[in-house]
Amino acid sequence: MDEFEFIDWIRQQPSIKSDVVGVGPGDDCAVLRIDREQVLVTTDQCADGVHFLLPQCGAEAAGYKVMARNLSDIAAMAGLPMAAVATVMLPHGMADKDVQDIYRGLRRSADAFGCPLVGGDVGSWDGRLLLTVTLLGRPAVGKPILRSGAKIGDAICVTGTLGGSLPSGKHLHFTPRISEAADLAGRVELHAMIDISDGLAADLGHICRESGLGAEIVAENIPLSTAAEEAEDPLAAALSDGEDYELLFTLPPEQAELLIKEQPLAPGIAYIGQIVARPEMKLRIGGKLQPMEPRGYRHRA
Amino acid sequence: MDEFEFIDWIRQQPSIKSDVVGVGPGDDCAVLRIDREQVLVTTDQCADGVHFLLPQCGAEAAGYKVMARNLSDIAAMAGLPMAAVATVMLPHGMADKDVQDIYRGLRRSADAFGCPLVGGDVGSWDGRLLLTVTLLGRPAVGKPILRSGAKIGDAICVTGTLGGSLPSGKHLHFTPRISEAADLAGRVELHAMIDISDGLAADLGHICRESGLGAEIVAENIPLSTAAEEAEDPLAAALSDGEDYELLFTLPPEQAELLIKEQPLAPGIAYIGQIVARPEMKLRIGGKLQPMEPRGYRHRA
Repeated sequence: MDEFEFIDWIRQQPSIKSDVVGVGPGDDCAVLRIDREQVLVTTDQCADGVHFLLPQCGAEAAGYKVMARNLSDIAAMAGLPMAAVATVMLPHGMADKDVQDIYRGLRRSADAFGCPLVGGDVGSWDGRLLLTVTLLGRPAVGKPILRSGAKIGDAICVTGTLGGSLPSGKHLHFTPRISEAADLAGRVELHAMIDISDGLAADLGHICRESGLGAEIVAENIPLSTAAEEAEDPLAAALSDGEDYELLFTLPPEQAELLIKEQPLAPGIAYIGQIVARPEMKLRIGGKLQPMEPRGYRHRA
Repeated sequence: MDEFEFIDWIRQQPSIKSDVVGVGPGDDCAVLRIDREQVLVTTDQCADGVHFLLPQCGAEAAGYKVMARNLSDIAAMAGLPMAAVATVMLPHGMADKDVQDIYRGLRRSADAFGCPLVGGDVGSWDGRLLLTVTLLGRPAVGKPILRSGAKIGDAICVTGTLGGSLPSGKHLHFTPRISEAADLAGRVELHAMIDISDGLAADLGHICRESGLGAEIVAENIPLSTAAEEAEDPLAAALSDGEDYELLFTLPPEQAELLIKEQPLAPGIAYIGQIVARPEMKLRIGGKLQPMEPRGYRHRA
């Protein structure tokens, strides 16, 4: 049972009835109804040896990354962060400066979006560094944008450029697209949105699955990062490297065309395809349409 | 720098100004103001080899414990849980049944208090099992009860019995005192409250420090658990073993006397001492008053 199978199994379990829960497990954030507010909740962890290599990146970057990953999940719902809590499990004997650097990294990321760090827990053990953050947020405009809201005929767009996040180091230094998501939510009618953490193909797969629809992507419209262009297979890098932390969203096509013309966001917006009724994902390369696996594109010779 | 020094250092750092934050780091929960509600937020972790021994207790008990620890922090503020999120970092190759048992343990603990598990994150690594939970709650009655609210002359009370949580296994199977705390909050004027996780002496030290006051405890009034009675030094066990997860609270003495007489709570209530002006903790053994260290009582021959 891998991570995705475990989450599927969890979603099949009967859940407690609660008036508080608007959206439960399975989106970028849960949505709670607290008084008249909709509150977004997300949690994510970063482990040494999995999400970062401590000897190479240092403790500050580790702290930055775990907070930024959570901020990216709030962005994916078109939310603004309200408050964060963090847990830190330190390896025994970690130098004081490194311990403080974790906190400095958490704060650098959170402070950039005015998000207070209001609590946490610290422990130490004979294992490696593991950090978790839980973030609360609220919708920037009206309601949160779910993965499940895509409609047939929607344009599919992404911010920034994709691929090569590991070799370029972007996975440690990315800017969560909080401001861009809030701007988009005020500017257009967002139907569905997700942040690209697993890779374009996999995350588009989440939108399609939750919306019960399919997608057709035009390969030459996918915005490649410099690092992806330098990869052996640039298209594969953009489709499946993951950890881009860009926004992937769907909206009415006429609104997408305006966005592309006006380019209101600093990282840029690309119009890469459309939502279709048949629940499959296809990739158009040159004139040919071929299947696109949600786990990532495999180059066919 | 140990855990407490790190937390002290964090509390000295300048924090982001925010209208949302009612209570920041340093209590059992943070308190956020969301619309007209006060929302409690707490997070805590449990690691294999530190908070439980996986081969001995099994995965279900580990899941139960991490959720129950967080519920106990909500109880410490006289709160009721609203929703939980959890992260799980699995050792590579963990059996499917064990993975599912973690979830079952989390749910057993949360379900007992009607608390929905609304999201989380799952990863795996070559390290040991580490679990975190973040809980949101709301005050059971009116306002949350802080550590800092003790008043001179307050009675100091505890629920249940103390000491020997490790040998008795209570640290894995305790019932978080959610119902008892809500009952107390509706019945008496609670001034300060904490759950006993570090040990009676250390946690009373937190109340005294945050309230800027001191305490005198009467040794013979401390309720000893059966496991503490079997320990080499029963009093030391009750004062400093920790992980009792009982409530330690202060209130007007006449109300404490009524509680002792009526004993409205199933685990029982003991009246163990009083809050004093001088910011020191003292322990009365027989007729003699001696200093009590917040890190735990040391037996003097």
